[in-house]
Amino acid sequence: MTTISKQEVLAETATPFEVAERLAEYFALTAAERDLIGGTPYEQRQAIRDSGLLKLLIPKSLGGLGASWVELFQIIRLFARVDSSLAQVFAFQFLMLASIRLYGTKEQWQTLWKETAEKNLWWGNALNPLDNRTIATPNGNHLVFSGQKSFCSGATDSDRLIVSAIEAETNRFIVAAVPSNRAGISINNDWNNMGQRQTDSGSVNFDQLIVEQDELLMNPGPLSSPFSSLRSLVAQLIFTNIYQGIAEGALEEAIKYTQQSSRVWSGSLAQTVQQDPFTLLHFGEFWASLDASRLLADEAAKQLENAWRQDLLLSEEARGKVALAVFSAKVNITRSGLDVCSRIFEVAGARATTATLRLDRYWRNLRVYTLHDPADYKLKDLGDWALNKRYPVPSFYS
Amino acid sequence: MTTISKQEVLAETATPFEVAERLAEYFALTAAERDLIGGTPYEQRQAIRDSGLLKLLIPKSLGGLGASWVELFQIIRLFARVDSSLAQVFAFQFLMLASIRLYGTKEQWQTLWKETAEKNLWWGNALNPLDNRTIATPNGNHLVFSGQKSFCSGATDSDRLIVSAIEAETNRFIVAAVPSNRAGISINNDWNNMGQRQTDSGSVNFDQLIVEQDELLMNPGPLSSPFSSLRSLVAQLIFTNIYQGIAEGALEEAIKYTQQSSRVWSGSLAQTVQQDPFTLLHFGEFWASLDASRLLADEAAKQLENAWRQDLLLSEEARGKVALAVFSAKVNITRSGLDVCSRIFEVAGARATTATLRLDRYWRNLRVYTLHDPADYKLKDLGDWALNKRYPVPSFYS
Amino acid sequence: MTTISKQEVLAETATPFEVAERLAEYFALTAAERDLIGGTPYEQRQAIRDSGLLKLLIPKSLGGLGASWVELFQIIRLFARVDSSLAQVFAFQFLMLASIRLYGTKEQWQTLWKETAEKNLWWGNALNPLDNRTIATPNGNHLVFSGQKSFCSGATDSDRLIVSAIEAETNRFIVAAVPSNRAGISINNDWNNMGQRQTDSGSVNFDQLIVEQDELLMNPGPLSSPFSSLRSLVAQLIFTNIYQGIAEGALEEAIKYTQQSSRVWSGSLAQTVQQDPFTLLHFGEFWASLDASRLLADEAAKQLENAWRQDLLLSEEARGKVALAVFSAKVNITRSGLDVCSRIFEVAGARATTATLRLDRYWRNLRVYTLHDPADYKLKDLGDWALNKRYPVPSFYS
Amino acid sequence: MTTISKQEVLAETATPFEVAERLAEYFALTAAERDLIGGTPYEQRQAIRDSGLLKLLIPKSLGGLGASWVELFQIIRLFARVDSSLAQVFAFQFLMLASIRLYGTKEQWQTLWKETAEKNLWWGNALNPLDNRTIATPNGNHLVFSGQKSFCSGATDSDRLIVSAIEAETNRFIVAAVPSNRAGISINNDWNNMGQRQTDSGSVNFDQLIVEQDELLMNPGPLSSPFSSLRSLVAQLIFTNIYQGIAEGALEEAIKYTQQSSRVWSGSLAQTVQQDPFTLLHFGEFWASLDASRLLADEAAKQLENAWRQDLLLSEEARGKVALAVFSAKVNITRSGLDVCSRIFEVAGARATTATLRLDRYWRNLRVYTLHDPADYKLKDLGDWALNKRYPVPSFYS
Repeated sequence: MTTISKQEVLAETATPFEVAERLAEYFALTAAERDLIGGTPYEQRQAIRDSGLLKLLIPKSLGGLGASWVELFQIIRLFARVDSSLAQVFAFQFLMLASIRLYGTKEQWQTLWKETAEKNLWWGNALNPLDNRTIATPNGNHLVFSGQKSFCSGATDSDRLIVSAIEAETNRFIVAAVPSNRAGISINNDWNNMGQRQTDSGSVNFDQLIVEQDELLMNPGPLSSPFSSLRSLVAQLIFTNIYQGIAEGALEEAIKYTQQSSRVWSGSLAQTVQQDPFTLLHFGEFWASLDASRLLADEAAKQLENAWRQDLLLSEEARGKVALAVFSAKVNITRSGLDVCSRIFEVAGARATTATLRLDRYWRNLRVYTLHDPADYKLKDLGDWALNKRYPVPSFYS
Repeated sequence: MTTISKQEVLAETATPFEVAERLAEYFALTAAERDLIGGTPYEQRQAIRDSGLLKLLIPKSLGGLGASWVELFQIIRLFARVDSSLAQVFAFQFLMLASIRLYGTKEQWQTLWKETAEKNLWWGNALNPLDNRTIATPNGNHLVFSGQKSFCSGATDSDRLIVSAIEAETNRFIVAAVPSNRAGISINNDWNNMGQRQTDSGSVNFDQLIVEQDELLMNPGPLSSPFSSLRSLVAQLIFTNIYQGIAEGALEEAIKYTQQSSRVWSGSLAQTVQQDPFTLLHFGEFWASLDASRLLADEAAKQLENAWRQDLLLSEEARGKVALAVFSAKVNITRSGLDVCSRIFEVAGARATTATLRLDRYWRNLRVYTLHDPADYKLKDLGDWALNKRYPVPSFYS
Repeated sequence: MTTISKQEVLAETATPFEVAERLAEYFALTAAERDLIGGTPYEQRQAIRDSGLLKLLIPKSLGGLGASWVELFQIIRLFARVDSSLAQVFAFQFLMLASIRLYGTKEQWQTLWKETAEKNLWWGNALNPLDNRTIATPNGNHLVFSGQKSFCSGATDSDRLIVSAIEAETNRFIVAAVPSNRAGISINNDWNNMGQRQTDSGSVNFDQLIVEQDELLMNPGPLSSPFSSLRSLVAQLIFTNIYQGIAEGALEEAIKYTQQSSRVWSGSLAQTVQQDPFTLLHFGEFWASLDASRLLADEAAKQLENAWRQDLLLSEEARGKVALAVFSAKVNITRSGLDVCSRIFEVAGARATTATLRLDRYWRNLRVYTLHDPADYKLKDLGDWALNKRYPVPSFYS
Repeated sequence: MTTISKQEVLAETATPFEVAERLAEYFALTAAERDLIGGTPYEQRQAIRDSGLLKLLIPKSLGGLGASWVELFQIIRLFARVDSSLAQVFAFQFLMLASIRLYGTKEQWQTLWKETAEKNLWWGNALNPLDNRTIATPNGNHLVFSGQKSFCSGATDSDRLIVSAIEAETNRFIVAAVPSNRAGISINNDWNNMGQRQTDSGSVNFDQLIVEQDELLMNPGPLSSPFSSLRSLVAQLIFTNIYQGIAEGALEEAIKYTQQSSRVWSGSLAQTVQQDPFTLLHFGEFWASLDASRLLADEAAKQLENAWRQDLLLSEEARGKVALAVFSAKVNITRSGLDVCSRIFEVAGARATTATLRLDRYWRNLRVYTLHDPADYKLKDLGDWALNKRYPVPSFYS
């Protein structure tokens, strides 16, 4: 295998999508072995840093590349086809930037987005709203955060963190943006999971972490408006595109393997596996279901893009429609993606299960990541719309 | 129930879609009872004639309404939600016009399309390519057709027919356009089926039918080019939109019935059926799967529209891509539509099975119509693309 | 088609199963046309009366044939393969006899069972526990029933009825056995449904119906013990066997039709439909799933038989185990049966949808009957066992 | 965790099933970590040797425990619930003994079975009939085997091997029984797979291996009679029981985890996960489908037992019926087992994916092992029976 030089990845004449394509090729070279070892993919993270793509979504006026959500999701999906861990930590850069944009003041987000572009900062996540073990206590002009957070994807090797805490006494859910290396933050490299193994989604400890008032992203803050509550839809659509990418990557591997190595079963009426009726039937099922999921994800991205542009004018109804599009996409790829990732072996055959290929990682990655929050409740929300014409109630998950 | 006056349907200020909406309301009034009696829905057919929609796709320059395929498919789907038999015979008007356009000379199709608009003609189908019992024998300047054709949807009460025959000696597949009332044509009202009961898809007899040379649609003729072979994709996408409409209609009925009449089961944790977790889960599944099918059908329509505009410049590859989009849409709605039409009763409950509602007609109509040609072979074609990058080989079914 | 003479059906040397086989052949002759017309199949009902099978389950000591539940379920399934309406009203004879046995005193049930055998009585159902519109008011030594009951399968043309009412003041659920022709009972022939069309499952009116104390089946009464609550399991296993029979009948018809009439699709690698890979794959799926359901129903029958024999000694735990076996069987055949009945057309092809065959009746019958009570709650009960080791709580449905 | 002393495992008063239960407990202690490291589980293999269960199926008259196939399959399933690798190599002991019994002379099998019991021998597999790279060349009184074999489960640490080769010139498929440590045999410890990681299913090299005439199992030899061809049904039913065990083990883990660690989702109407409707629904689905598979496997075992006892009198038809029962069981558990092993996480939740639990091994083990030969062809065989009343044609796979 050859490596891709940094020069190739960063060729100045390339569009962001072309840069991303080269990064994806580079990730693919070692994706299987890195799935085995887990941990932090420092070299690949550095390649992402060097590529300039961390400022993809930041407007040109603030020093970024000025890409749209639609373009961003295409790149996330592209990465996920070959390495869904890197796709996740890359995508979370933009979920964190979105959080700043949706929760903070205009001055805050513009300052932080601009600084991110200038200094090529990478944001990590320590916001898990289900984990309420971190408490914020007022102390003079600032707050002090102490406690733990689980599932902090991308905190390791990050420059900045979005953190959350429960405010003592008020019970308010507090969100803030802080430097990752501030005293009082310990990022524990304790992520060891059956899938998404290089996302560093472990725990973070806060020990008397000082958070200044102007670091709080509480004006207008989470869930303060339909616009603010777009954050969960950004998150859900990031997941959806990663799921889609994983399943497409699995299908691509199955096609490659079947073409190169699979043999037709002795009872077939066909001479070759390429003409075998059952093989073609299964591939047709895979294709048709991923085609559907892909269109749903694309449609949801268009709707999210449009909602994003409406800023605080975004109505509850318009936000609701985006939610329905996102949830529909998510539940479809959850089912069809798991089916494809599990059944690719039925076309590729027993020899495709050798550990050297680690083709099971597609199922493992998708299985783990689709558990972020229960698909049943997305279906319930869709059913509530279908039956009762009620839009999903905005929350950190819907 | 009130009837809709002809005046309302035809109000001059209405757009074609608005006219279609009123027609659909009118069809809905009697759809259940007409499903029971079968036969030919003369009154509803007359309402379609009166509506002007028979010239929907014909360019304004030829006296038509100048609508696109995309608009046409929306109207077909709208009709199918309430009456898939009328949707079919209405849609076949345009499949027949497409056949003329794709198989005939420029002079032929322009003349026939113009005449169709002027005289408000309705075209019926007698082309079934799988039924080779009709033989064409040369006799001086004309051909003589004798034999039978099955599955001749919309032949009854039609003004013109597209007919086909096998040419004796050459074995060529011959297609022609003739008046429905010409001597030698007997349209047998022998359609009696478990579904699509008012499509008059029975048999036609030809007894020494004289077909003139200039009535033959053989220059360039069927399957003569990628463009000419768009006919089967038009047909398949008509089916797809009717399937989609049937399933959406079933879901609408289920919602209405559940809201009005269903009771929550005693073991539920919810107080009302509207909040029942299982009920919402099922409705969510219905919604999510029909959402996917809908996007696929819409995407295929866009692609077909684009291909249609390319005329003889349409490449094999571009035609192939349309085929893949159409087939993907078709197989998805075949599966999800049957599932929805069968499972609506699980949310609506046992009382929804009363014969007065005839809610089983959604399943019956969809079940029958999805058998037009086997879905397995569409999956196989999609698999052939996925695995071997081979486009579907154009035929009367693919 | 020939008819089967009464003599043949009743040949004295035949076993009950052989008699049932001949009855089934006789039902099959007209099953499709009787599905069309609905109403009461008097001739076929008379053939059942003449066959002696109405006393199948009654011990020889009381004048019956002394068959077991296992044998009875085999015969119910046999009937259901060709006519699930007749299977239902036949089966309900034994559900009513079971109710008498489980709810009444020893004297009551022995008297009524013996009388049933002697007079060849047929019992109809007017017990629907979900319909509480019938009120029982004390009046001297007897009760007076007034109100309505829905879903009274087999009440028409019956000799006796099991009726239920809510007792005014106490709100007790009262069950009684009365002659069908007693003053105050009006059996309305108002059943018109999309399936199970000859079960006469319409409504019954009670207008000042006098019910004597010794006609009440309240000692020990419904749900009074694990044994008494076997009634709902008897009912659920009757349904299960009828579902199984319907699906097996559908498969048999599909096999017959495919062998005789289906053609292989042009794109197949096989020369005949009998060798077509997709056709064989689908038939294999049908077979495998019905094989599973069949074993589950048989296993549940064995367990029910055993529980029945334990009489009042039956423990909650033993009753619970039977419930689990019955529910497991029921949910499996509900899903797989609907799948088979809907998909048989995919192997048989479009021509099998002709109304003359009425092959849709398998799906219609199964669809209607599987809605008796929601399968979701059977799954929930099974889940409660799997997760919490809680047996289903006895009720009229579980 | 405590260990189980050898004394406990071998307590003399225990039945074979009780001994197996203790072994299973012992395997369970380290199953997850051994899945991680792969390789050969020498200690656990020694515990099996010490347990006496290697002679389970051998008649008491030959020094064995005299168990039936039915009993053996129960123990295989029991092991598979906690460790499907050990279940496989244990089960292959009996597939090898069956091969000797079915292919060899009476003298051969009695001698080898007796010796197996006496010396507590463990047989490994080097017979893969799809791998024809090993060639047998006559040389004087013996044959010389040279070449390779893949998928030789349990060859490592075995005492004896069943080997196969293609005879040069005649192309006959030759089977023989030889000591594992004979010169010319190199067992390569090269098995590294995504599942069934401790089965040592790697390759074996033969380099001028001398095989004596009386070591050949060719009289009557493979596929020589319906009885002889029972070997593939023994193999397929071993697989089936291991699949069943894996799925049951996954369900048990899911139950345990959900009870101890899972939390109810915030949108649930229930207070606890134990009462959550969706959780119970999913557990109900798992239970119902594994219940079906279990009955099918048990039924097939009964039929195989019966066929085994018929020896050479076994008819083609009787053998065919066993094949249908085995295949039906196999395809059912293949589908339902994969579904359960993938979906257990949907009830247990995201935290159950931690690598320390390695709960993905159930899916990985089942996914790998269900690929032994394609399920499609088992369905095709069942379809051939359903449609054409043709029994599966005996082969090494059917």
